[in-house]
Amino acid sequence: MSKNDYVVIMAGGAGTRFWPLSTSKKPKQFLDILGTGYTLIQDTYNRALNICDKNNIFVVTNKDYYNLTKQQLPNLPEKNILLEPYRKNTAPCIAYAAYKIREINPNAVMVVLPSDHVIKKEKIFAKAIQSCISKANKQDALITIGIKPSRPDTGYGYIQYITDSNINEKDDRTFKVKTFTEKPDLEMARYFVKSGEFLWNAGIFIWSVKNIIYALETHDSELASIFQEGKDIYNTNNEAKFLEKAYSTCKNISIDYSVLEKAQNVYVRSTIMGWSDVGTWRSLYEHLHYDSHKNAVAGKNVMLYDSSKCLINVPNEKLVVIQGMEDFIIIESDNMLLICKKDAEQQIRNFVNEIKIQKGDKYI
Amino acid sequence: MSKNDYVVIMAGGAGTRFWPLSTSKKPKQFLDILGTGYTLIQDTYNRALNICDKNNIFVVTNKDYYNLTKQQLPNLPEKNILLEPYRKNTAPCIAYAAYKIREINPNAVMVVLPSDHVIKKEKIFAKAIQSCISKANKQDALITIGIKPSRPDTGYGYIQYITDSNINEKDDRTFKVKTFTEKPDLEMARYFVKSGEFLWNAGIFIWSVKNIIYALETHDSELASIFQEGKDIYNTNNEAKFLEKAYSTCKNISIDYSVLEKAQNVYVRSTIMGWSDVGTWRSLYEHLHYDSHKNAVAGKNVMLYDSSKCLINVPNEKLVVIQGMEDFIIIESDNMLLICKKDAEQQIRNFVNEIKIQKGDKYI
Repeated sequence: MSKNDYVVIMAGGAGTRFWPLSTSKKPKQFLDILGTGYTLIQDTYNRALNICDKNNIFVVTNKDYYNLTKQQLPNLPEKNILLEPYRKNTAPCIAYAAYKIREINPNAVMVVLPSDHVIKKEKIFAKAIQSCISKANKQDALITIGIKPSRPDTGYGYIQYITDSNINEKDDRTFKVKTFTEKPDLEMARYFVKSGEFLWNAGIFIWSVKNIIYALETHDSELASIFQEGKDIYNTNNEAKFLEKAYSTCKNISIDYSVLEKAQNVYVRSTIMGWSDVGTWRSLYEHLHYDSHKNAVAGKNVMLYDSSKCLINVPNEKLVVIQGMEDFIIIESDNMLLICKKDAEQQIRNFVNEIKIQKGDKYI
Repeated sequence: MSKNDYVVIMAGGAGTRFWPLSTSKKPKQFLDILGTGYTLIQDTYNRALNICDKNNIFVVTNKDYYNLTKQQLPNLPEKNILLEPYRKNTAPCIAYAAYKIREINPNAVMVVLPSDHVIKKEKIFAKAIQSCISKANKQDALITIGIKPSRPDTGYGYIQYITDSNINEKDDRTFKVKTFTEKPDLEMARYFVKSGEFLWNAGIFIWSVKNIIYALETHDSELASIFQEGKDIYNTNNEAKFLEKAYSTCKNISIDYSVLEKAQNVYVRSTIMGWSDVGTWRSLYEHLHYDSHKNAVAGKNVMLYDSSKCLINVPNEKLVVIQGMEDFIIIESDNMLLICKKDAEQQIRNFVNEIKIQKGDKYI
């Protein structure tokens, strides 16, 4: 754990795929979606504490989530909560953090972590990150974490690497990246998995601030110059005002498009660490504990009869009796109730849109 | 409308067949179960106003429901709410009311109405009652209302009458009763309906207080003497104290067993008045308005997808999205949620018992 190591947690997302549990007022990263007693951002923060000191952990989130972040991470120094005035995807978020941290410590290595993923094998995760930090310190490398795919998932991004392109001779797990592919169709995903050359993109990055800033300047000079302009303003009282301008100017773009797909020094570390982006109820279901009828239940007063393979998440104080349900999602949150077949969960987006149209933002 | 006409509304029941909508704290009669804007007891009271003046309407209920009764029937004189200290079925309830009313008006005719039934054809009901009152005034007759059965329902009681035993030559609808049968099996129910000699027992009675008291003295002298004892106490400040003693002494018995099955002067008036005791969710479902997919929905923020033949009752302010449900009951009330197949509704009793065992009375 070096004083040069930093973690940047990206926590600005506002997905409603877990509606009604997640809403734009309280998105997934702020939920204890696994029923472990910790929200996903708390889990992420705790993992970050194994990487660096809490003073070196930064959470970048939307200004709307300042209070939630403060509440859920009471030990994080308040000044380490970086507030984005607008949602502009990952590239501006990472650029902002990189330029800001450079003014604090030009030798910083930053680990970028999404705030809403599940990682079951924390030790493997920590070891992989340490190994990547050490490489990012020594080499001009932008390193991503790739997950060995266990199935042809069409919901993930895939990273193809060049076999026999090890980052150095001692490392047989970190390879040069050849291509990025977002959400392939099933046939392609099957081919990817079979080929052995593809890994899932976990959205976790390790690089020195020097190298990522150089890469931004090289591959997205427009974005780079916007955040370069704040050089003397970061970590002063004028930062928020500057950000308002910077974010209203900059485009909405992911770090993949902005930099990684163009740069020649991108590496991927192949890892098996029980990772999931838990992007759907079904993928969440896989991570939960079942009862003997394969019902995954969160809620202390749920009574089940003749029911199986359901995912149930209701407040503890609520008494719920369910009979005759199979393969359903039953979610109650904050005066909203969703009952929906598991295999119809892709419709939840439509429900949410319909609600927006019919009822406004009140319930979203 | 004579000053001798009285209505006694029996409102002490505490059924939980409509759990979680009905609980022992707020049983069915106090619910707007049809979504009409009126609770069943309010509907009953309004029907009673067509029979007699409000000063002649008495509601007999459990002491626990005093406030509910007062709230829901604000125009009923407070002294007309008769409070039973214990639940002892219909015979003590009727005896109490009869002995008390006799002290007010010895020439009273009382109409006994359950508080939690549905009657769709109010005019026919009013006409039938008026006709029975007039007979009860003139003749030594205990008259019940019988409903022409439309199906072999096994949940109702049946009254067999003697054809060609008209109460008088002008009346071809009121007959002498031969037998009472509680909840027959399906085969028997089919036979009953086919025979044309059987009517459903609606639990509605019309008799003079003189005659019912005479019948009680004759057929259940034990019960009669308990309530006879209060003769000089009814309508005084000591009534509650007397009732405590009377009710703790008297047995739990229905008026059918106590008197009607033994008396020789019991008549039944055959009626078709859109009556139902709405004793089950399914029978309630029949009385509700459907949407085009046969969903009966109470609740202003319910959104249905790929769902049919469901009975849904949720608070207006609750946002509910339901997908992929067929033939289900979905009820939310007071922090309790029931999801249950329509054809499994007889299990609700078991659920409620299980809840009692596991969670105590809190939810019942």
